[in-house]
Amino acid sequence: MLKVGVIGTGMIGQDHIRRLTTVLNGVAVTAVTDVDTAVAADVGGRIGATVHATGEELVGDPAVDAVLVCSWGPTHEQYVLAAIAAGKPVFCEKPLATTQEACLRILDAEAAHGSRLVQVGYMRRFDFAYRALKMAVDSGEIGLPLMMHCAHRNASVPPFYRGDMAITDTAVHEIDMVRWMFGAEVSAVRVLVPRHNRNGGELEDPLLLIMEMADGVIVDVEVSVNIRYGYDIRGEIVGENGTASLGGPAPVAVRRDGRVGVPVPADWRERFLQAYDVELQEWVHAISLGGQPLGPSAWDGYAAAAVSDAGVEALRTGNRVLISLVDQPKLYAEAAG
Amino acid sequence: MLKVGVIGTGMIGQDHIRRLTTVLNGVAVTAVTDVDTAVAADVGGRIGATVHATGEELVGDPAVDAVLVCSWGPTHEQYVLAAIAAGKPVFCEKPLATTQEACLRILDAEAAHGSRLVQVGYMRRFDFAYRALKMAVDSGEIGLPLMMHCAHRNASVPPFYRGDMAITDTAVHEIDMVRWMFGAEVSAVRVLVPRHNRNGGELEDPLLLIMEMADGVIVDVEVSVNIRYGYDIRGEIVGENGTASLGGPAPVAVRRDGRVGVPVPADWRERFLQAYDVELQEWVHAISLGGQPLGPSAWDGYAAAAVSDAGVEALRTGNRVLISLVDQPKLYAEAAG
Amino acid sequence: MLKVGVIGTGMIGQDHIRRLTTVLNGVAVTAVTDVDTAVAADVGGRIGATVHATGEELVGDPAVDAVLVCSWGPTHEQYVLAAIAAGKPVFCEKPLATTQEACLRILDAEAAHGSRLVQVGYMRRFDFAYRALKMAVDSGEIGLPLMMHCAHRNASVPPFYRGDMAITDTAVHEIDMVRWMFGAEVSAVRVLVPRHNRNGGELEDPLLLIMEMADGVIVDVEVSVNIRYGYDIRGEIVGENGTASLGGPAPVAVRRDGRVGVPVPADWRERFLQAYDVELQEWVHAISLGGQPLGPSAWDGYAAAAVSDAGVEALRTGNRVLISLVDQPKLYAEAAG
Amino acid sequence: MLKVGVIGTGMIGQDHIRRLTTVLNGVAVTAVTDVDTAVAADVGGRIGATVHATGEELVGDPAVDAVLVCSWGPTHEQYVLAAIAAGKPVFCEKPLATTQEACLRILDAEAAHGSRLVQVGYMRRFDFAYRALKMAVDSGEIGLPLMMHCAHRNASVPPFYRGDMAITDTAVHEIDMVRWMFGAEVSAVRVLVPRHNRNGGELEDPLLLIMEMADGVIVDVEVSVNIRYGYDIRGEIVGENGTASLGGPAPVAVRRDGRVGVPVPADWRERFLQAYDVELQEWVHAISLGGQPLGPSAWDGYAAAAVSDAGVEALRTGNRVLISLVDQPKLYAEAAG
Repeated sequence: MLKVGVIGTGMIGQDHIRRLTTVLNGVAVTAVTDVDTAVAADVGGRIGATVHATGEELVGDPAVDAVLVCSWGPTHEQYVLAAIAAGKPVFCEKPLATTQEACLRILDAEAAHGSRLVQVGYMRRFDFAYRALKMAVDSGEIGLPLMMHCAHRNASVPPFYRGDMAITDTAVHEIDMVRWMFGAEVSAVRVLVPRHNRNGGELEDPLLLIMEMADGVIVDVEVSVNIRYGYDIRGEIVGENGTASLGGPAPVAVRRDGRVGVPVPADWRERFLQAYDVELQEWVHAISLGGQPLGPSAWDGYAAAAVSDAGVEALRTGNRVLISLVDQPKLYAEAAG
Repeated sequence: MLKVGVIGTGMIGQDHIRRLTTVLNGVAVTAVTDVDTAVAADVGGRIGATVHATGEELVGDPAVDAVLVCSWGPTHEQYVLAAIAAGKPVFCEKPLATTQEACLRILDAEAAHGSRLVQVGYMRRFDFAYRALKMAVDSGEIGLPLMMHCAHRNASVPPFYRGDMAITDTAVHEIDMVRWMFGAEVSAVRVLVPRHNRNGGELEDPLLLIMEMADGVIVDVEVSVNIRYGYDIRGEIVGENGTASLGGPAPVAVRRDGRVGVPVPADWRERFLQAYDVELQEWVHAISLGGQPLGPSAWDGYAAAAVSDAGVEALRTGNRVLISLVDQPKLYAEAAG
Repeated sequence: MLKVGVIGTGMIGQDHIRRLTTVLNGVAVTAVTDVDTAVAADVGGRIGATVHATGEELVGDPAVDAVLVCSWGPTHEQYVLAAIAAGKPVFCEKPLATTQEACLRILDAEAAHGSRLVQVGYMRRFDFAYRALKMAVDSGEIGLPLMMHCAHRNASVPPFYRGDMAITDTAVHEIDMVRWMFGAEVSAVRVLVPRHNRNGGELEDPLLLIMEMADGVIVDVEVSVNIRYGYDIRGEIVGENGTASLGGPAPVAVRRDGRVGVPVPADWRERFLQAYDVELQEWVHAISLGGQPLGPSAWDGYAAAAVSDAGVEALRTGNRVLISLVDQPKLYAEAAG
Repeated sequence: MLKVGVIGTGMIGQDHIRRLTTVLNGVAVTAVTDVDTAVAADVGGRIGATVHATGEELVGDPAVDAVLVCSWGPTHEQYVLAAIAAGKPVFCEKPLATTQEACLRILDAEAAHGSRLVQVGYMRRFDFAYRALKMAVDSGEIGLPLMMHCAHRNASVPPFYRGDMAITDTAVHEIDMVRWMFGAEVSAVRVLVPRHNRNGGELEDPLLLIMEMADGVIVDVEVSVNIRYGYDIRGEIVGENGTASLGGPAPVAVRRDGRVGVPVPADWRERFLQAYDVELQEWVHAISLGGQPLGPSAWDGYAAAAVSDAGVEALRTGNRVLISLVDQPKLYAEAAG
């Protein structure tokens, strides 16, 4: 039974606590903390977990085998570094950190530790449909991949959603996904701005993000965040001999009112509910069995930050922006195999 | 240029005249007649066709190479017999005649003539989707066919629609289709009556028609005639190694309001528009080139009548009703190859 | 943490033990037993569970809160009765028992106990697609249901598979499903035997099972058990105003070699993997939280047996066979709400 | 009966002659000519048409009401100008002419004539699926259109196919289509070159063509010309509230060998067979009834040439290339309504 401490008991933290305590196998939540001590006390009390005053204190709790970081983005770096310093595995919700520099400090700390401790919360790698897509590509049945067409559509976004977030919060999932899908880094990005969607007020929406991978694969991503009809994640990989497309949940088709209709998920929670479960279950099993996480690494968190930053610059300037990463530490090169 | 005389200028007759004069190649309408002489005069006048007082007179017109019978069902026999007597090809809208006995008189007349003159208007054999389905089955890719599941759905039916018509007017299309699809006769029928659809008032609707083919294939047909959502024709053939299903027109998919929606045709005119064009174009070409029609024969018209009659009896009695046909005249046995 | 004892450590038992110990939340396997004591000792040893000489001994173990019966069908009755006698919740793999009389003895025992202890392993009720289908029907969006068309297809069956099993082992899943879907009992069955599939040797395959529900809904089920192309479970419910169809897992579409292809599951394990997880997880939670199971009851097990028996008779005689159930004990009438 | 003279009796010319003489209504081919006089004589002989020594002679034939230009591209200008000079309607296969200057000379000639005589052979506007897509967009059901994603895939191309042709012969269909779909001109183009498809040898393939429309709509077009699996034309229009996607012919679905498979057309002939029929039938009817063609105009031919030229420049330079058209003559502005 893996004993997990959760830093951050807001919406995401509470959802993960629900998952760890009522859905997943082989794990218990033994400690919690939050900047809002009342919330932490309430949540901790309901599940019988120790409530700590700070994240650092939680990390130091001997009843905590591994740490889940669900706090506000700007605090991720300090808690991840604290966990590494304590030699404890840490699952950090995206982003790994809010700057590339901070990510690099984490890479250094982990390299100094000498083995992987960090996993970053990019959950698409755990989605059944993306996994089936990757299996189709890796099987060779469509030949060498050449292009990918993606769409990332939200019915709506909250009022605090600002322009850069279309890259840093929304398209960042595609950024991580294509790096994993093709086993290659993104080398350049462009962002084109089509006709404006008035549903989003002043927001620059939709966008067309174009990524060039180091091996020449070109990926285009439609990012639409106010398209009303639902949450829709699509992807088609074009190979030399054929293509493979992402399916998704379509449990029922209703013939009614002149149409055959298949429901679209309402939001990302519905679409990726299962992926979140698989993500954390596999993390729990990996930590329990082998000590090292197998999912997205600190390197993946750093690379996603670098591509996101370039995407924001491309959006602001209209230019094609090149991405150059630091040399990949040996620790991650091995894992990439 | 094949010169066609049209008997019956009601709704169906006028639609075929439109087709012959503005859509099809190699054909002209040179003569018309109708029990309502004013309508016949009006229609004939607009297209410059001779207006005859009777069908028999039209058949005898030397400017008529071939005859199209679109009049009221009970009159079909006499006009088809007149055309056979004159040695002129005749396309007769379904049914060939309203009784099996009348059909047999037509078979006898055609046999006496010595070659095929009659084609009956079962248009599904000319539909692109049914043809693709038959090609899939005939290719052997699903193995020997064992079963077929069909649905024949109408959004609504007119007030004069009565119970037997679900068999004689609606399911009769499946009756002809399966005989063609499997190259075998129907040997027995059952009709089951499920829970009642209140959309149709007193009408017995839906029905489940079950046909046993001479070669053991079993076909089930859902007949729903008040299902509101649209006109939907479906079919799946189950073979030893796989199945083949009818597609259909799906030119566009709209993502809107929480659903991916594909439109369903509103009615049979929309669904089978093209099949009617192909049916008559191939008839025109066949008559022009070879003299003999290649589509559904008088035998097919007789067999459909026999199965329909058995279906009505099965509906009325609740029994499994066997069908026995007269021996097939040599004329049709050859054509069936 | 619910402590479960597992009776029967064969293929299904081991799969459930894997599920309980590595997938599900809130449960531990504390005891096992099997007629093959060496296997029981081996399985029990690997998970640190007590190994009992008999099922009765396991039921009596104070470290066993609830019992899972995965042994050979003919032994189900005795172990379920033992669990009831001990007042312990018991999950029994299908069938509940091998005769209706045995099922009735279980009903009596449970009624004497006074509350539900038994759940039977019909897992389709826990499948995401069937649940979406039921929600679509219950929402009223297709109107009152009138008919259902089903297909249950297996690529192949093992050599020991005999004719009756097409009803008792295969179609029994549809029998339970339609009772749950429509909240009504099956009142009569017919079985039609189409042309023979030679892939299965002498086996009567495929079959067309027709069920009449007490409320008039008619269900037709194609049972094909040697259709080679894969495992395919299909269902369409026909309502007064539209229809709702079962989707399923279709995570990826591959365009290759002249076709757009969507993979079909290889077998029932792949298709219903998730349903088994949900089934047992919900059972664990229900027992832990409320003491009573919420899934298929002993009554459901009895009714499935009665319809299966009628189905076998219908297959053997070619007749329409009526089903009459004993009066439903109050215990189950309440739960059915 | 419209009397048509055909200039050019090569592959396309013969196919159109087959169409005019055996498929379409209300038209006859009365005259032919070709640079290969033996072929012209042979083709003309078989259909009883006058064989002319030159295109100009054919245009002058009083038995020719309208002209079809199917000759080699570089000769289009001279024959179209000859027809305009004679005041005869002329249907010109794409391209209208091989340079923008030549197109402008045709515009001037037609303007001098004072009414539309020219139609250019962009057949997608007559395809049932594109028409359904346009109706969906025009209905407003997805809101104002913002983006369009297209794919234009060929299984293979002939050996003489060179790099520019991916724009000038292949993507030119999308260029015309989007101008028609959105009722706006293309203002800028980019071409990105992904990883190379080795199926095509040295050919630059695939390409990603990005068009910016004057109203801000952005269109991306994948052009793949050696993708082996078939001919596949796809399009999805992204609106403010939803999207509309191109369906296509899918008459049958086959379940076999572990997959549900829907066939893809082999080539453009199969995919657009019906569109060619509709294109010429509507032209014949329009000329017969009103004298003026209603399909793609000389202006459309000129604009397609301008965008194609810019596309070729974009491919060669890697730049975003702006397109500036001459002022649209009043003749076409009216027709655009």
